[in-house]
Amino acid sequence: MAAPIDFYFDFSSPYGYFASTKIDALAAKFGREVVWRPFLLGAAMKITGGTPLPSVPLKGDYARRDFARSAKFYGVAFKLPSAFPISSQAPARAFYWLARTDPNQAKALAAALYRAYFVDDINISNADDTIAVCAGFGLNAQAVRAALNDPAIKDLVKAEVDKAIGRGAFGSPYIVIDDEAFWGADRLEQVEKWLASGGWKY
Amino acid sequence: MAAPIDFYFDFSSPYGYFASTKIDALAAKFGREVVWRPFLLGAAMKITGGTPLPSVPLKGDYARRDFARSAKFYGVAFKLPSAFPISSQAPARAFYWLARTDPNQAKALAAALYRAYFVDDINISNADDTIAVCAGFGLNAQAVRAALNDPAIKDLVKAEVDKAIGRGAFGSPYIVIDDEAFWGADRLEQVEKWLASGGWKY
Repeated sequence: MAAPIDFYFDFSSPYGYFASTKIDALAAKFGREVVWRPFLLGAAMKITGGTPLPSVPLKGDYARRDFARSAKFYGVAFKLPSAFPISSQAPARAFYWLARTDPNQAKALAAALYRAYFVDDINISNADDTIAVCAGFGLNAQAVRAALNDPAIKDLVKAEVDKAIGRGAFGSPYIVIDDEAFWGADRLEQVEKWLASGGWKY
Repeated sequence: MAAPIDFYFDFSSPYGYFASTKIDALAAKFGREVVWRPFLLGAAMKITGGTPLPSVPLKGDYARRDFARSAKFYGVAFKLPSAFPISSQAPARAFYWLARTDPNQAKALAAALYRAYFVDDINISNADDTIAVCAGFGLNAQAVRAALNDPAIKDLVKAEVDKAIGRGAFGSPYIVIDDEAFWGADRLEQVEKWLASGGWKY
C-alpha cells in the first residue's frame, strides 16, 4: 500500500481548517491514508520572515474577505474568531499527547478543536479552553492539563515542528504526497489531479 | 451589459501569465469582457512589505517547483526565465502606450510579451528586448522606443499603478469583478463559480 499523505497544518490557520474538512475523503478516493501533523506557523515565520496575514497592509483586508468567501465556496461553517491569529501550542500539545496512543482519535480531536475555534469562537490558545474542548470530546480534563504541562509533550511538539520545517512546511496547509509538497487549500485541485494521474513530470 | 472585469497583473508574475491565458475565455462564457491592466508588483510590495517569492527561505524553493508544476497543471508552456523576477516597467509602458489607441491590440501584445519572457526567456525588463518583441509583433520599433522614453507614458503607467494599488491590488493576478477582488491564478475556480452564480453573500 502507498505511503500515507502528510497533512501539516496550524490550528490557527483558516485555510488549514478548510483543507482539514476535505483531505481524508479526497485521499480515500485514491486508497490513501492521511497522517495529520499540526505544527506552529510562528516557528516557520521566524525562518521565512513572514508576517501573519491580517497585519499586512492591503493583503490583510483581502485575507479577511477571502477567508469568509472561501468558507462558503468550500461549504464549511466559519466565523472569523475574535482573537485571530493565535499561538496554537495548547491544541498542538493536546493533539500529540493523544496521538501517541490513538492517532485516529487525535484526528477527530483536531477536527473538534478546529470547530471550537473557527465555528464557536473559543480561543484554544488558552490552555483552559483547549482542556474544555478536550473534556467535551470525552477526554479526562486532569489528564489533558497534565499533558499540556508535561515537558516530554512540550519536547515532542518542538520535535514535530522542527520535522515539519525540515520537510519545508512554511505555510498551512502543507500537504506532502511521496515527497511532493502542495501548499494551500487552493492546491487541493492539484492534489486530486496528482493522485488521480500518479503525478506528472515538470 | 455588465461592466468589464479588471485583470491586474505584473509582466514578471508566472501566476499572472497563467491566468492571462485563461481569463478572457472564462469571462466570455458568462458574456463578460476583460480589461487588462498591467501594474508593478514592486510598488505594491513597498506598501505590503512583501519580498519577491524566490528570495524567501523555504517558500522560494517551493515557489520554483510550484511555477513549473502549475504550468503543466494549467497546460501552459513555461520555462523559468534566466532573470527572475524582473522589473516590468518597459513592457508596461509599451502596453499602455498601445492601449491608448487600441486596447485589443494591446492585450495581444501583452500575451506576446508574456510568451517572450516565460517561454522564450527574453528579458523584457530591457528596453531593447521589449522593443524587439514589439517589432516582431508588427509595431514600429522607433515609435515604441520613443514611447518608452516619453514622460507622458511614464506618468500614465505611474497613474495606472497607483489606481491598481488604490483598488487593493497587492499581488498578481488580481481580478476584480464588480468590486469583488480575487487574488491568484488559483482563484479562477472561485471566479468561475462567482460568475456562474452571480456571487454569494459571506
